[in-house]
Amino acid sequence: MSTSLYQLTVPVFVKALTNLKAVLEKAKAHALDHKTEEAAFFNARLYPDMFPLSRQVQVATDLARAGAARLAGVEPPTFEDKEQTFDDLMARITRSIEYLKSLDPRQFDGAETREIVRPVGGQPHTFTGLNYLVQFATPNVYFHTTTAYDILRHNGVPLGKADFIGALD
Amino acid sequence: MSTSLYQLTVPVFVKALTNLKAVLEKAKAHALDHKTEEAAFFNARLYPDMFPLSRQVQVATDLARAGAARLAGVEPPTFEDKEQTFDDLMARITRSIEYLKSLDPRQFDGAETREIVRPVGGQPHTFTGLNYLVQFATPNVYFHTTTAYDILRHNGVPLGKADFIGALD
Repeated sequence: MSTSLYQLTVPVFVKALTNLKAVLEKAKAHALDHKTEEAAFFNARLYPDMFPLSRQVQVATDLARAGAARLAGVEPPTFEDKEQTFDDLMARITRSIEYLKSLDPRQFDGAETREIVRPVGGQPHTFTGLNYLVQFATPNVYFHTTTAYDILRHNGVPLGKADFIGALD
Repeated sequence: MSTSLYQLTVPVFVKALTNLKAVLEKAKAHALDHKTEEAAFFNARLYPDMFPLSRQVQVATDLARAGAARLAGVEPPTFEDKEQTFDDLMARITRSIEYLKSLDPRQFDGAETREIVRPVGGQPHTFTGLNYLVQFATPNVYFHTTTAYDILRHNGVPLGKADFIGALD
Protein backbone atom coordinates (compact mmCIF):
# COMPACT_ATOMS: atom_id res chain seq x y z
CA MET A 1 0.00 0.00 0.00
CA SER A 2 1.23 3.48 -0.73
CA THR A 3 0.02 7.02 -0.74
CA SER A 4 1.10 9.63 -3.27
CA LEU A 5 2.22 13.04 -2.13
CA TYR A 6 -0.44 14.57 -4.37
CA GLN A 7 -3.16 12.92 -2.24
CA LEU A 8 -1.50 14.27 0.91
CA THR A 9 -1.25 17.80 -0.41
CA VAL A 10 -3.80 19.05 -2.93
CA PRO A 11 -7.06 17.59 -1.56
CA VAL A 12 -5.88 18.17 2.02
CA PHE A 13 -5.06 21.85 1.50
CA VAL A 14 -8.20 22.36 -0.63
CA LYS A 15 -10.25 21.03 2.29
CA ALA A 16 -8.44 23.15 4.89
CA LEU A 17 -8.99 26.30 2.79
CA THR A 18 -12.62 25.39 1.99
CA ASN A 19 -13.29 25.08 5.72
CA LEU A 20 -11.50 28.37 6.40
CA LYS A 21 -13.73 30.05 3.81
CA ALA A 22 -16.84 28.66 5.53
CA VAL A 23 -15.53 29.99 8.86
CA LEU A 24 -15.12 33.44 7.31
CA GLU A 25 -18.67 33.23 5.87
CA LYS A 26 -19.95 32.69 9.40
CA ALA A 27 -17.87 35.58 10.69
CA LYS A 28 -19.22 37.86 7.96
CA ALA A 29 -22.81 36.87 8.81
CA HIS A 30 -22.11 37.38 12.52
CA ALA A 31 -20.69 40.86 11.89
CA LEU A 32 -23.78 41.79 9.85
CA ASP A 33 -26.15 40.38 12.49
CA HIS A 34 -24.44 42.32 15.24
CA LYS A 35 -24.00 45.48 13.18
CA THR A 36 -20.28 45.25 13.85
CA GLU A 37 -17.72 46.67 11.43
CA GLU A 38 -15.89 43.91 9.60
CA ALA A 39 -12.65 45.67 10.48
CA ALA A 40 -13.17 44.77 14.14
CA PHE A 41 -12.67 41.12 13.20
CA PHE A 42 -10.35 41.71 10.29
CA ASN A 43 -7.77 43.48 12.42
CA ALA A 44 -8.24 41.37 15.55
CA ARG A 45 -5.16 39.72 17.08
CA LEU A 46 -4.63 37.39 20.01
CA TYR A 47 -1.61 39.42 21.11
CA PRO A 48 -0.17 42.72 19.87
CA ASP A 49 2.82 41.15 18.06
CA MET A 50 0.82 38.33 16.46
CA PHE A 51 -0.63 38.61 12.97
CA PRO A 52 -4.23 39.88 12.71
CA LEU A 53 -6.97 37.71 11.22
CA SER A 54 -6.49 39.08 7.70
CA ARG A 55 -2.79 38.21 7.69
CA GLN A 56 -3.44 34.72 9.13
CA VAL A 57 -5.70 34.05 6.15
CA GLN A 58 -3.22 35.51 3.66
CA VAL A 59 -0.38 33.41 5.06
CA ALA A 60 -2.48 30.22 5.23
CA THR A 61 -3.35 30.57 1.54
CA ASP A 62 0.24 31.48 0.59
CA LEU A 63 1.66 28.47 2.41
CA ALA A 64 -0.89 26.10 0.88
CA ARG A 65 -0.12 27.30 -2.66
CA ALA A 66 3.63 27.37 -2.07
CA GLY A 67 3.67 23.98 -0.37
CA ALA A 68 1.85 22.28 -3.22
CA ALA A 69 3.75 24.15 -5.95
CA ARG A 70 7.18 23.30 -4.55
CA LEU A 71 6.28 19.63 -4.27
CA ALA A 72 5.04 19.77 -7.85
CA GLY A 73 8.38 21.27 -8.89
CA VAL A 74 7.00 24.64 -10.02
CA GLU A 75 7.33 28.20 -8.76
CA PRO A 76 4.35 29.19 -6.59
CA PRO A 77 2.26 32.18 -7.68
CA THR A 78 2.44 35.16 -5.33
CA PHE A 79 -0.69 37.15 -4.55
CA GLU A 80 -0.72 40.84 -3.65
CA ASP A 81 -1.80 41.46 -0.03
CA LYS A 82 -4.55 44.02 -0.53
CA GLU A 83 -7.65 42.41 1.00
CA GLN A 84 -9.90 44.82 2.90
CA THR A 85 -13.08 42.81 3.51
CA PHE A 86 -14.25 39.29 4.28
CA ASP A 87 -15.33 39.01 0.64
CA ASP A 88 -11.79 39.88 -0.46
CA LEU A 89 -10.34 37.20 1.82
CA MET A 90 -12.82 34.62 0.60
CA ALA A 91 -11.94 35.51 -3.01
CA ARG A 92 -8.26 34.96 -2.18
CA ILE A 93 -9.12 31.55 -0.78
CA THR A 94 -11.13 30.70 -3.92
CA ARG A 95 -8.24 31.71 -6.18
CA SER A 96 -5.85 29.64 -4.07
CA ILE A 97 -8.12 26.60 -4.28
CA GLU A 98 -8.34 27.03 -8.06
CA TYR A 99 -4.57 27.12 -8.24
CA LEU A 100 -4.22 23.96 -6.14
CA LYS A 101 -6.74 22.16 -8.34
CA SER A 102 -4.83 23.19 -11.47
CA LEU A 103 -1.85 21.06 -10.41
CA ASP A 104 -1.56 17.64 -12.04
CA PRO A 105 -1.01 14.53 -9.88
CA ARG A 106 1.81 13.51 -12.26
CA GLN A 107 3.76 16.65 -11.28
CA PHE A 108 4.11 15.04 -7.83
CA ASP A 109 5.86 11.91 -9.15
CA GLY A 110 9.09 11.60 -7.17
CA ALA A 111 8.12 14.48 -4.89
CA GLU A 112 8.96 12.47 -1.71
CA THR A 113 12.67 12.73 -2.43
CA ARG A 114 12.69 16.02 -4.37
CA GLU A 115 15.19 18.41 -2.80
CA ILE A 116 13.48 21.57 -1.58
CA VAL A 117 15.58 24.41 -0.19
CA ARG A 118 13.76 27.01 1.87
CA PRO A 119 14.91 29.73 4.24
CA VAL A 120 14.29 28.66 7.84
CA GLY A 121 15.30 31.05 10.62
CA GLY A 122 17.30 33.08 8.09
CA GLN A 123 19.33 30.08 6.87
CA PRO A 124 18.69 27.89 3.82
CA HIS A 125 17.37 24.50 4.89
CA THR A 126 17.42 21.51 2.54
CA PHE A 127 14.34 19.30 2.92
CA THR A 128 13.32 16.12 1.19
CA GLY A 129 9.87 16.65 -0.32
CA LEU A 130 8.29 14.40 2.28
CA ASN A 131 9.88 16.23 5.20
CA TYR A 132 8.99 19.59 3.65
CA LEU A 133 5.35 18.46 3.52
CA VAL A 134 4.96 16.84 6.93
CA GLN A 135 7.33 18.97 9.00
CA PHE A 136 6.79 22.37 7.41
CA ALA A 137 3.95 22.90 4.90
CA THR A 138 1.15 20.94 6.58
CA PRO A 139 1.71 22.13 10.18
CA ASN A 140 2.09 25.70 8.91
CA VAL A 141 -1.20 25.59 7.00
CA TYR A 142 -3.04 24.21 10.03
CA PHE A 143 -1.29 26.64 12.36
CA HIS A 144 -2.64 29.64 10.46
CA THR A 145 -6.11 28.22 9.72
CA THR A 146 -6.50 27.28 13.40
CA THR A 147 -5.27 30.67 14.58
CA ALA A 148 -7.74 32.41 12.24
CA TYR A 149 -10.49 30.27 13.80
CA ASP A 150 -9.21 31.01 17.31
CA ILE A 151 -9.18 34.78 16.68
CA LEU A 152 -12.79 34.69 15.47
CA ARG A 153 -13.88 32.42 18.31
CA HIS A 154 -12.15 34.71 20.81
CA ASN A 155 -14.16 37.57 19.33
CA GLY A 156 -17.47 35.82 19.83
CA VAL A 157 -18.18 34.35 16.39
CA PRO A 158 -20.30 31.23 16.98
CA LEU A 159 -18.10 28.46 15.57
CA GLY A 160 -17.45 24.86 16.53
CA LYS A 161 -14.66 22.46 15.73
CA ALA A 162 -16.90 20.87 13.08
CA ASP A 163 -16.54 24.12 11.09
CA PHE A 164 -12.78 23.70 11.18
CA ILE A 165 -12.83 19.98 10.31
CA GLY A 166 -15.50 20.36 7.63
CA ALA A 167 -17.25 17.68 5.57
CA LEU A 168 -15.80 14.17 5.84
CA ASP A 169 -15.55 11.55 3.12
CA MET B 1 7.45 6.51 -4.97
CA SER B 2 5.20 5.91 -2.05
CA THR B 3 4.83 6.88 1.54
CA SER B 4 3.62 4.57 4.28
CA LEU B 5 0.94 5.65 6.70
CA TYR B 6 3.33 4.91 9.56
CA GLN B 7 5.66 7.66 8.31
CA LEU B 8 2.72 10.05 8.11
CA THR B 9 1.49 9.28 11.60
CA VAL B 10 3.98 8.21 14.26
CA PRO B 11 6.95 10.53 13.57
CA VAL B 12 4.56 13.38 12.69
CA PHE B 13 2.56 13.13 15.92
CA VAL B 14 5.73 12.53 17.97
CA LYS B 15 7.10 15.80 16.58
CA ALA B 16 3.87 17.73 17.19
CA LEU B 17 3.76 16.53 20.82
CA THR B 18 7.49 17.11 21.36
CA ASN B 19 7.02 20.71 20.22
CA LEU B 20 3.95 21.10 22.44
CA LYS B 21 6.01 19.90 25.40
CA ALA B 22 8.70 22.48 24.63
CA VAL B 23 6.00 25.16 24.46
CA LEU B 24 4.75 24.11 27.91
CA GLU B 25 8.34 24.18 29.24
CA LYS B 26 8.56 27.82 28.15
CA ALA B 27 5.20 28.58 29.73
CA LYS B 28 6.31 27.00 33.00
CA ALA B 29 9.53 29.05 32.98
CA HIS B 30 7.56 32.20 32.17
CA ALA B 31 5.15 31.58 35.05
CA LEU B 32 8.09 31.12 37.44
CA ASP B 33 9.87 34.23 36.14
CA HIS B 34 6.74 36.33 36.59
CA LYS B 35 5.76 34.78 39.92
CA THR B 36 2.43 33.85 38.34
CA GLU B 37 0.41 30.85 39.51
CA GLU B 38 0.51 28.04 36.96
CA ALA B 39 -3.28 27.81 37.27
CA ALA B 40 -3.61 31.21 35.57
CA PHE B 41 -2.27 29.61 32.38
CA PHE B 42 -3.59 26.14 33.03
CA ASN B 43 -7.20 27.30 33.20
CA ALA B 44 -6.94 30.01 30.54
CA ARG B 45 -9.41 29.90 27.65
CA LEU B 46 -9.86 32.01 24.53
CA TYR B 47 -13.63 32.10 25.11
CA PRO B 48 -15.78 30.88 28.00
CA ASP B 49 -17.16 27.83 26.15
CA MET B 50 -13.80 26.76 24.70
CA PHE B 51 -11.57 24.22 26.40
CA PRO B 52 -8.89 25.61 28.75
CA LEU B 53 -5.21 25.04 28.08
CA SER B 54 -5.06 21.86 30.17
CA ARG B 55 -7.89 20.24 28.23
CA GLN B 56 -6.40 21.29 24.88
CA VAL B 57 -3.24 19.40 25.84
CA GLN B 58 -5.17 16.37 27.08
CA VAL B 59 -7.22 16.19 23.88
CA ALA B 60 -4.19 16.71 21.62
CA THR B 61 -2.43 13.77 23.25
CA ASP B 62 -5.57 11.61 23.21
CA LEU B 63 -6.17 12.25 19.52
CA ALA B 64 -2.54 11.53 18.62
CA ARG B 65 -2.57 8.20 20.49
CA ALA B 66 -6.01 7.24 19.20
CA GLY B 67 -5.23 8.26 15.63
CA ALA B 68 -2.10 6.17 15.48
CA ALA B 69 -3.61 3.21 17.35
CA ARG B 70 -6.67 2.97 15.09
CA LEU B 71 -4.51 3.06 11.97
CA ALA B 72 -2.37 0.32 13.52
CA GLY B 73 -5.54 -1.70 14.13
CA VAL B 74 -5.31 -1.69 17.93
CA GLU B 75 -7.42 -0.15 20.70
CA PRO B 76 -5.93 3.14 21.91
CA PRO B 77 -5.00 3.43 25.58
CA THR B 78 -7.08 5.93 27.56
CA PHE B 79 -5.43 8.16 30.13
CA GLU B 80 -7.17 9.54 33.21
CA ASP B 81 -7.61 13.34 33.06
CA LYS B 82 -6.11 14.38 36.38
CA GLU B 83 -3.28 16.74 35.48
CA GLN B 84 -2.90 19.72 37.81
CA THR B 85 0.44 21.25 36.83
CA PHE B 86 2.62 21.90 33.79
CA ASP B 87 4.80 19.00 34.92
CA ASP B 88 1.76 16.72 34.91
CA LEU B 89 0.84 17.80 31.37
CA MET B 90 4.41 17.30 30.18
CA ALA B 91 4.43 13.82 31.73
CA ARG B 92 1.22 13.00 29.85
CA ILE B 93 2.88 14.12 26.62
CA THR B 94 5.94 11.97 27.38
CA ARG B 95 3.78 8.90 28.05
CA SER B 96 1.86 9.56 24.81
CA ILE B 97 5.10 9.83 22.83
CA GLU B 98 6.32 6.55 24.38
CA TYR B 99 3.07 4.89 23.33
CA LEU B 100 3.38 6.21 19.76
CA LYS B 101 6.97 4.95 19.55
CA SER B 102 5.89 1.50 20.78
CA LEU B 103 3.85 0.96 17.60
CA ASP B 104 5.48 -1.13 14.88
CA PRO B 105 5.57 0.14 11.28
CA ARG B 106 4.30 -3.28 10.15
CA GLN B 107 1.06 -2.71 12.09
CA PHE B 108 0.33 0.03 9.54
CA ASP B 109 0.47 -2.31 6.52
CA GLY B 110 -2.80 -1.88 4.67
CA ALA B 111 -3.85 1.01 6.91
CA GLU B 112 -4.76 3.25 3.92
CA THR B 113 -7.83 1.16 3.19
CA ARG B 114 -8.56 -0.11 6.72
CA GLU B 115 -12.16 0.66 7.66
CA ILE B 116 -12.33 2.91 10.71
CA VAL B 117 -15.71 3.75 12.23
CA ARG B 118 -15.84 6.72 14.57
CA PRO B 119 -18.67 8.82 15.98
CA VAL B 120 -18.84 12.15 14.17
CA GLY B 121 -21.54 14.61 15.20
CA GLY B 122 -23.30 11.84 17.13
CA GLN B 123 -23.45 9.46 14.14
CA PRO B 124 -21.05 6.65 13.25
CA HIS B 125 -18.90 7.64 10.28
CA THR B 126 -16.99 5.06 8.24
CA PHE B 127 -13.60 6.28 7.10
CA THR B 128 -10.90 4.68 5.03
CA GLY B 129 -7.66 4.76 7.03
CA LEU B 130 -6.21 7.41 4.74
CA ASN B 131 -9.24 9.69 5.07
CA TYR B 132 -9.31 9.13 8.84
CA LEU B 133 -5.70 10.30 8.99
CA VAL B 134 -5.79 13.31 6.67
CA GLN B 135 -9.34 14.55 7.27
CA PHE B 136 -9.72 13.82 10.98
CA ALA B 137 -6.70 12.77 13.05
CA THR B 138 -4.03 15.11 11.67
CA PRO B 139 -6.13 18.32 11.55
CA ASN B 140 -7.48 17.55 15.03
CA VAL B 141 -4.01 17.11 16.52
CA TYR B 142 -2.82 20.39 14.97
CA PHE B 143 -6.04 22.16 15.95
CA HIS B 144 -5.46 21.43 19.64
CA THR B 145 -1.68 21.93 19.65
CA THR B 146 -2.12 25.27 17.87
CA THR B 147 -4.91 26.37 20.21
CA ALA B 148 -2.74 25.48 23.24
CA TYR B 149 -0.01 27.66 21.71
CA ASP B 150 -2.51 30.45 20.98
CA ILE B 151 -3.85 30.41 24.55
CA LEU B 152 -0.32 30.76 25.95
CA ARG B 153 0.64 33.42 23.42
CA HIS B 154 -2.56 35.33 24.24
CA ASN B 155 -1.51 35.22 27.88
CA GLY B 156 1.88 36.72 27.20
CA VAL B 157 4.16 33.69 27.08
CA PRO B 158 7.07 34.59 24.76
CA LEU B 159 6.72 32.02 21.97
CA GLY B 160 7.29 32.11 18.24
CA LYS B 161 6.09 29.91 15.41
CA ALA B 162 9.48 28.17 15.44
CA ASP B 163 8.51 26.72 18.84
CA PHE B 164 5.41 25.22 17.24
CA ILE B 165 7.22 23.92 14.14
CA GLY B 166 10.21 22.60 16.09
CA ALA B 167 13.42 21.05 14.81
CA LEU B 168 13.51 20.22 11.11
CA ASP B 169 15.20 17.25 9.43
